[in-house]
Amino acid sequence: MSTSISCLRLSLIALFLLFLVLLFHYTLSPSEFFNCSQSFSLPCTSRKVGLILRPQIPKPKTHFKDAAHHPLDPLTIQEINQVRSILLSYKPLPSFPAIHSLSLDEPDKPQVLDWKIGDPLPARKALVVALLNAQSHLLTVDLDLGKVTSHEVKLGSGYPPVSLEDIEGALRVALSFTELNKSAIDRGMKLSDLACDTPSAGWYGPSEEERRVIKVQCFSGQGSPNFYMRPIEGLTLTIDIDNKKVVKFTDTGRGIPVPKDKNTEYRYGSQTDPPPIMEQLKPISIEQPNGPSFTVENGYIVKWANWVFHLKPDSRAGMIISRAMVRDSETGELRSVMYKGFSSELFVPYMDPDESWYFKTYMDAGEYGMGVTATSLVPLNDCPRYSYYMDGIFVTSDGKPYVQPNMICIFERYAGDIGWRHSEGLISSLSAQIRESRPKITPVARMAASVGNYDYIFDWEFQTDGLIRIKIALSGMLMVKGSPHENINQVPNQEDMTGTLVSENVIGVVHDHFITFHLDMDVDDTNNSFAKVNLVREETSPGESARKSYLKAKRLVAKTEEDAQVKLKLYDPSEFHVINPSRRSRLGNPSGYKLVPSGTAASLLDLDDPPQLRSAFTNNQIWVTPYNRTEQWAGGLLTYQSRGEDTLAVWSARNRPIENKDIVLWYTLGFHHIPCQEDFPVMPTVSSSFGLKPVNFFESNPILRIAPNFEQDLPVCRAAVSA
Amino acid sequence: MSTSISCLRLSLIALFLLFLVLLFHYTLSPSEFFNCSQSFSLPCTSRKVGLILRPQIPKPKTHFKDAAHHPLDPLTIQEINQVRSILLSYKPLPSFPAIHSLSLDEPDKPQVLDWKIGDPLPARKALVVALLNAQSHLLTVDLDLGKVTSHEVKLGSGYPPVSLEDIEGALRVALSFTELNKSAIDRGMKLSDLACDTPSAGWYGPSEEERRVIKVQCFSGQGSPNFYMRPIEGLTLTIDIDNKKVVKFTDTGRGIPVPKDKNTEYRYGSQTDPPPIMEQLKPISIEQPNGPSFTVENGYIVKWANWVFHLKPDSRAGMIISRAMVRDSETGELRSVMYKGFSSELFVPYMDPDESWYFKTYMDAGEYGMGVTATSLVPLNDCPRYSYYMDGIFVTSDGKPYVQPNMICIFERYAGDIGWRHSEGLISSLSAQIRESRPKITPVARMAASVGNYDYIFDWEFQTDGLIRIKIALSGMLMVKGSPHENINQVPNQEDMTGTLVSENVIGVVHDHFITFHLDMDVDDTNNSFAKVNLVREETSPGESARKSYLKAKRLVAKTEEDAQVKLKLYDPSEFHVINPSRRSRLGNPSGYKLVPSGTAASLLDLDDPPQLRSAFTNNQIWVTPYNRTEQWAGGLLTYQSRGEDTLAVWSARNRPIENKDIVLWYTLGFHHIPCQEDFPVMPTVSSSFGLKPVNFFESNPILRIAPNFEQDLPVCRAAVSA
Repeated sequence: MSTSISCLRLSLIALFLLFLVLLFHYTLSPSEFFNCSQSFSLPCTSRKVGLILRPQIPKPKTHFKDAAHHPLDPLTIQEINQVRSILLSYKPLPSFPAIHSLSLDEPDKPQVLDWKIGDPLPARKALVVALLNAQSHLLTVDLDLGKVTSHEVKLGSGYPPVSLEDIEGALRVALSFTELNKSAIDRGMKLSDLACDTPSAGWYGPSEEERRVIKVQCFSGQGSPNFYMRPIEGLTLTIDIDNKKVVKFTDTGRGIPVPKDKNTEYRYGSQTDPPPIMEQLKPISIEQPNGPSFTVENGYIVKWANWVFHLKPDSRAGMIISRAMVRDSETGELRSVMYKGFSSELFVPYMDPDESWYFKTYMDAGEYGMGVTATSLVPLNDCPRYSYYMDGIFVTSDGKPYVQPNMICIFERYAGDIGWRHSEGLISSLSAQIRESRPKITPVARMAASVGNYDYIFDWEFQTDGLIRIKIALSGMLMVKGSPHENINQVPNQEDMTGTLVSENVIGVVHDHFITFHLDMDVDDTNNSFAKVNLVREETSPGESARKSYLKAKRLVAKTEEDAQVKLKLYDPSEFHVINPSRRSRLGNPSGYKLVPSGTAASLLDLDDPPQLRSAFTNNQIWVTPYNRTEQWAGGLLTYQSRGEDTLAVWSARNRPIENKDIVLWYTLGFHHIPCQEDFPVMPTVSSSFGLKPVNFFESNPILRIAPNFEQDLPVCRAAVSA
Repeated sequence: MSTSISCLRLSLIALFLLFLVLLFHYTLSPSEFFNCSQSFSLPCTSRKVGLILRPQIPKPKTHFKDAAHHPLDPLTIQEINQVRSILLSYKPLPSFPAIHSLSLDEPDKPQVLDWKIGDPLPARKALVVALLNAQSHLLTVDLDLGKVTSHEVKLGSGYPPVSLEDIEGALRVALSFTELNKSAIDRGMKLSDLACDTPSAGWYGPSEEERRVIKVQCFSGQGSPNFYMRPIEGLTLTIDIDNKKVVKFTDTGRGIPVPKDKNTEYRYGSQTDPPPIMEQLKPISIEQPNGPSFTVENGYIVKWANWVFHLKPDSRAGMIISRAMVRDSETGELRSVMYKGFSSELFVPYMDPDESWYFKTYMDAGEYGMGVTATSLVPLNDCPRYSYYMDGIFVTSDGKPYVQPNMICIFERYAGDIGWRHSEGLISSLSAQIRESRPKITPVARMAASVGNYDYIFDWEFQTDGLIRIKIALSGMLMVKGSPHENINQVPNQEDMTGTLVSENVIGVVHDHFITFHLDMDVDDTNNSFAKVNLVREETSPGESARKSYLKAKRLVAKTEEDAQVKLKLYDPSEFHVINPSRRSRLGNPSGYKLVPSGTAASLLDLDDPPQLRSAFTNNQIWVTPYNRTEQWAGGLLTYQSRGEDTLAVWSARNRPIENKDIVLWYTLGFHHIPCQEDFPVMPTVSSSFGLKPVNFFESNPILRIAPNFEQDLPVCRAAVSA
């Protein structure tokens, strides 16, 4: 029994289920369903998974012998075990704490920048965020010294991300709460029919302060795996996580039926209806019989065409790109572009003030973690053929390492797009027609986090022309609200609905997504400036020109942080350059990279609203801060129940000098989401992206001389027998 | 000689060279370079083209026997010849006019909507826009009746697009102008070294009214095909096109050297420098050994998966999508989405008030034509393998048909993207893990117009989930200004520069691109309404909620055109729905499609500035007009030298009712372009896109039940011997 539970727990950790469903079965015969042979390196897999999708998942790698090769490489299994040993014998802690985060404490930036292959690694250190007796402890463990070198008890608001134990514990408390059982029975359901999830509580005033609380809400888990579409509306428990008791119970939705399971199933293997009425597509694939053109060296260094970067999984950020460098097309010099880039925080406020909804204002990275929720990718569907898969190595709350297999994929993309082209007519007798065109080929690093209902797909794409494109695609399930209505003509006042009726008795509630990126640009070196290149209308003087007006680009270099707090304006547009004032092209232009925002949304909540205070990093779309190694997480290091004391907005308000300094650019990509029927029962992907684009960084077009595609070089393919 | 000239002319027309370079050679031995066997169906090709790129261009199709199969099919060769015959014997015209446009006069919409396969075609008619004695004539020719059925002489401002004869004539006038020759000699150049282009003159007041004028500017054409980068700055001629004389000559840039040819060559076959320093990429290709999944029936009907639409080349718009219909995923019903969609006008103002620059405020569709400038696509580079190529059939100014081969490509795209996905953990004993993901596969219709220096790539992409994505990518050459400076430290006042120094003596001048789309949405039927779904912040009442604020979606149905004039605002966001109020889902939601704008730019010119008056269709990003078959071209039917009397802004100002009517949606995609060094000597592609997305159109996710990719179905490939 204990093995089974441990196995289950590991599965859960590996998947980091935010929305846990009660398994009455598992206490009976879990070994029937799970097959776990190792305590950490393999996930427990169901014997039946293969029947569902037949994914040809690469064999899990063993990571026993992994060693760090680069100062930024994540902690290895051995190192994590060593940290655990050190903590176990660390006397100042009265007992072993719950580990909420255990990851590499990156060396100071100058150490990393100075390091070269062949040099010994800088001291390997771990940063541990742990909870003991409801207090957050920050510990630095030096692995070379074999001891804890700093230990801080964090006062003030905020806790580390919730752990699986927190979630399990809260669910246990909820499910043994008599009122919940009664409520289920009153609705004609058994407790075993319930699937419950644990939304974070946010922070809404004194009643929830000074203790860790979490919400529990339940759904019908019968008949369909898609319980998200079947809420028991109005039923909400607030649980004191550490004291394991119900703080508040509300049960207001008795008149609202639980939506039926009809049309909610989404698994391919379980479809009983015929496939949709459309022509069957013939097989299509990105093919590279010689293999992809990138290499992954020493575990985490990706090399492709003119790019080199360090890519690693991170339990909180998901993926971290470091030391991104591009080779100069003229000199061959490997030039720095970005020291570190990652999604620092997500803010997902739902737009319903009801008792069961007001708190749904998630900060997914700091409250749950984007890495631990990034489950194995599905080959051929999440990522194309020839993908390389990278595993994550994370830590359970008892400090033991485990492997998240195939968490990141790297693949090379050819989408039929054009890198550059020009057609020219008769311009000389020797070249009557010119038709030049070059294909665009790029590598992509991808991860997909399933933070409960939602799936966030993160892509980092690197182009030969120097552009980095960061793309977020959203899929998964809506967060829906039960409704008494089956048709909007039954709704007395449609204006009062907080969303769209997307199925019978199901409202898809309006919400936003904001993803804030930490972009520590080091364009050619650490010291950079931020320049707004503002396009301003100039009016001509009488008689000066037949034109009345034209636009002029005016360059404003930001002196302090305040100058770099930007709200985008369509009618007052700027380009946003990170430039190196010390590095000039042969023409005298400063070397730079510009941020290219695209389809975006701003948070419109009241600035004093508690969720907006906590997520004040969304008050602007762009910020620039001076580099400070403690300022990594836009919503603060300890985000859970934080009160907004440690956000990017607070840091930026210091208004520090940022001109010709080591600076960090922050950008927030936003989505407003008014759900529609098409989002039911699972949402077709919606995406948005932004770019980091060289601007006077290269002396000229760096892909001028790349070769076109020639027929004789392309793969020779035949159809599969089964196709 | 006359054959050679005719051949050259045909080549030119086929390519519609806006930037024509003088060929001193062609008067000597043109037959050495051109090989033309037919008067219209084949373009004249250079024997040496093949050496440059080795494109395996599909064999040109003959179109002699083409017949129209659908009411919207473009005019066939026979039909064009018939129109020409009818016009030749049309007495009211004293002589044969110059044909500036000759294309299908589409039947009235109800006729097209009523027509079914097997029905006889509605009367085939041609709309002819011609010039005679500097007057614009609009003629409708009924091919069934064999006669001109309407004939209107257009008064007011505006002329049809310039023809190649206009351009040739203007260049002849310029090059025989003594002052130009003198100016060239003074600069140490021969007249034969010059490459001259013919920018449109715009409209700038009385001095240029009542006659057709065009500008001529010259470049150095020696040593490199990329003359665009080598302007003879300050040298501008204004030519009266019809009277063939120089109206104005300015020569102000004597102190500005002509930029050198160094680094300007871009042809692959002519590169002498080594390729760029980057790892060589291994072959990669989108492979479909069973062929693509779309079919093209009867020349112009594209069928793919759940989509059917009519696609045709158009001399002015480039591509026109008509009758786009998607199959309902539940009922199989083929449902109307859009009656007609195309790029109606482009507006490209340059931001320099100088005498040689103020007029550069192009309206590329109406002044030149996007279709006639769309040259043959380059296989494997402009479009991937398995592309289907469609030819354009256009008309020379003497009324004869010619074929623009491979002008449009249609291909199926798999870019490694995800259609939908969800990962779920332990939710029942029977499905311990759920990992469902579906690949995104789409067909794309593509065209690339080379309007002189710039290349505009237009993509229409259709997704199985019902979304239509329209993407514009820009490449080609900058329009640059000569400068006395080789380094910006030589520039006394950098603030006064109207662009960026992108090479020695070369300034890339700041400019905008606006592309305005005509989107005649017919969601489920012709009568639709336009609804703004505005997201508004609501403040809660004291005690109502722990939240202070939330967003609410408020639906505002536009009554008249004024309600639908939209400037996008980040802090006052809306969704923009075209809905069919008569077609309700089972839940009561109106069937709809929404416009999803993305990265966009607004025109910031003074509203009274002549170019902005002419391009007043860019005063808003969105407009909705009631359907009117004469309102197709946002800048007016006769755009050249127009004064803005016939623009979308003028039509919309009538403020007609648009609720539950046949309505047309207009959307403008914009780019601000501040050039950078990377844009020299040819620009890496920059793109932006917008979407038309079903919103409560389907009852639920229409791609829920599509199949995932399975390994055993994918192509079996090996590397080519040469790869």
